[in-house]
Amino acid sequence: MQKYTLQRYSDQPVLTTTDVKPYGDGFEVLGAFNPAACRFGDEILLLLRVAEAPSPAAGRLHVPIVETINGNSVLTVKSFPEPEGPYDPRVVSLDGQTYLTSLSHLRLARSHDGIHFTIDEKPFMFPARPDEAFGLEDARITRIDDTYWITYTAVSANGPGVGLAKTTDFVHVERVGMVLPPPNKDACLFPERVDGNLVMLHRPMVSDIGKPSVWICESPDGIHWGNHRYVFGAAGSAWDYLKIGAGPEPVRTDEGWLVLYHGASEQHEYALALALLSINDPGQLLDRSTAPLLTPELIWEREGFFPNVVFSNGWVSKGPNEWWVYYGAADSGVGLAILTRH
Amino acid sequence: MQKYTLQRYSDQPVLTTTDVKPYGDGFEVLGAFNPAACRFGDEILLLLRVAEAPSPAAGRLHVPIVETINGNSVLTVKSFPEPEGPYDPRVVSLDGQTYLTSLSHLRLARSHDGIHFTIDEKPFMFPARPDEAFGLEDARITRIDDTYWITYTAVSANGPGVGLAKTTDFVHVERVGMVLPPPNKDACLFPERVDGNLVMLHRPMVSDIGKPSVWICESPDGIHWGNHRYVFGAAGSAWDYLKIGAGPEPVRTDEGWLVLYHGASEQHEYALALALLSINDPGQLLDRSTAPLLTPELIWEREGFFPNVVFSNGWVSKGPNEWWVYYGAADSGVGLAILTRH
Repeated sequence: MQKYTLQRYSDQPVLTTTDVKPYGDGFEVLGAFNPAACRFGDEILLLLRVAEAPSPAAGRLHVPIVETINGNSVLTVKSFPEPEGPYDPRVVSLDGQTYLTSLSHLRLARSHDGIHFTIDEKPFMFPARPDEAFGLEDARITRIDDTYWITYTAVSANGPGVGLAKTTDFVHVERVGMVLPPPNKDACLFPERVDGNLVMLHRPMVSDIGKPSVWICESPDGIHWGNHRYVFGAAGSAWDYLKIGAGPEPVRTDEGWLVLYHGASEQHEYALALALLSINDPGQLLDRSTAPLLTPELIWEREGFFPNVVFSNGWVSKGPNEWWVYYGAADSGVGLAILTRH
Repeated sequence: MQKYTLQRYSDQPVLTTTDVKPYGDGFEVLGAFNPAACRFGDEILLLLRVAEAPSPAAGRLHVPIVETINGNSVLTVKSFPEPEGPYDPRVVSLDGQTYLTSLSHLRLARSHDGIHFTIDEKPFMFPARPDEAFGLEDARITRIDDTYWITYTAVSANGPGVGLAKTTDFVHVERVGMVLPPPNKDACLFPERVDGNLVMLHRPMVSDIGKPSVWICESPDGIHWGNHRYVFGAAGSAWDYLKIGAGPEPVRTDEGWLVLYHGASEQHEYALALALLSINDPGQLLDRSTAPLLTPELIWEREGFFPNVVFSNGWVSKGPNEWWVYYGAADSGVGLAILTRH
């Protein structure tokens, strides 16, 4: 993968938390990050993950969830006494149930130049099903013909799974359902069918045996998925020792399917790298980075809601040898880096 | 579920470890347990999980895996210096990779009375794919028309997933593939299609958020699965606090689909209980046990390869109100209990 370089467009983010208005009444925005990206008409769209939390109250811990009551989804804030002693600011265990302290939804941002974005005030997708009770996170967009398929993490109270939805106009969206059960994340569709099937990369979240790794599966209809196979995982390097997951939709090159992926070190530092998969058999790894192409270095990549993260699930092509890579920084804002094939 | 009782047939197991000959050269049988069960012709078949390990050697830890070399699967024993200090006798982490200390395969046992079994000397299914490198475990058999569908845990080096195979004669077996990715276990098919689809219960192995719970999904073809939905999980009792997973194939009753399931306490003690699901919408829970129907009490249920376990993935009907429940005891042998509806 030596012919590829990934360099920041600027030392400033293209989007920060303060650019985003909270949607929830009495909520604050903790981060606007990890966007999917695509071209639509003459615009570049980002589909941001916006994480919001109820405004803090002294001595209380407020936990947002979406409850399904009589078939309707209702945003609810549960209030608990603040746990004694230190606790994870993102995930807390209360009364025997694990909760997230924030609730993420997916919101569109629009740009003509790919650099200056206008952010919608309302969500494009807000949690609306029992399996989305803890939020929607980290979308990927894949265009196949005139349909934009959106994969995302649907966080249920029983773990995060892979949700799939589709749109043709970015106004109406149709949910296909939970296509991969918990615990799974980081799913992206290929932009072409292979042997007549839709193809998807995903990342099972294993615990007892093995480490998180990139898998592939296929589907005749987008609803039902099978033939799950391991593609690649930790290769013994420190920077991708703990986790590996695919980023945005793979793109076809004359050398193979180009995959942008993230690795996480044992210290939970996230970095970006590349892999190439066989065009005709995308379960076959042809090549991959031996070192990360981008690591968290700038202050807004190193400090935020979750520190030391560069994570990408959105890119757009700028010609045969250039891609604009939008990346989440420290689970707070969005940066832009240019991927070039030399 | 008050009208159901589950009582041991005898205070002795129907099968023990010593009844089984090891298949691997230089291997010992650690357990023959957790059988699937079905009627076939005029026999009752058990499809046992047989766990074998290389014979111990002083100061060394021998780890069995099945490697795929040039497309052929080869049983390999890796030898490591014995870890210093205490270690889990079942799962060890060596050189950054987690291994199982035993390798399980699936072997048939045959009986005319359901009590006295003759055990095959060779496996019915032996690990033979990269995603089976660490073994095959805990099968379920579901007959639909003249096909016997076999779900099982395929343990890959990257976590345990759900494998599916089918047979019509219990001689030849065709693998469908890994139908649910890691980490997942305890999958069983319903014996009838619902709305034209095959239906399956499964148990995602979540870690960060939620607890293991029973989910449902559906498939038009047996290969591709989707529409994953949560069905039931921990209800606040101590005996099923840690884990809940479905057992053998659900059976149709006039009250609903009868499901035998296991719960595990925080102390990893496994017990058996019942649930009823809606006939027309098996994702809907109608009823479930408030207390376990069988808990580990006898010495061979409390002591073994993994202590304090009664776990069932096999039963056969003995009329409209009686089922013979075969259950694994302490990951070592097999017991028989009679389930009666009064």
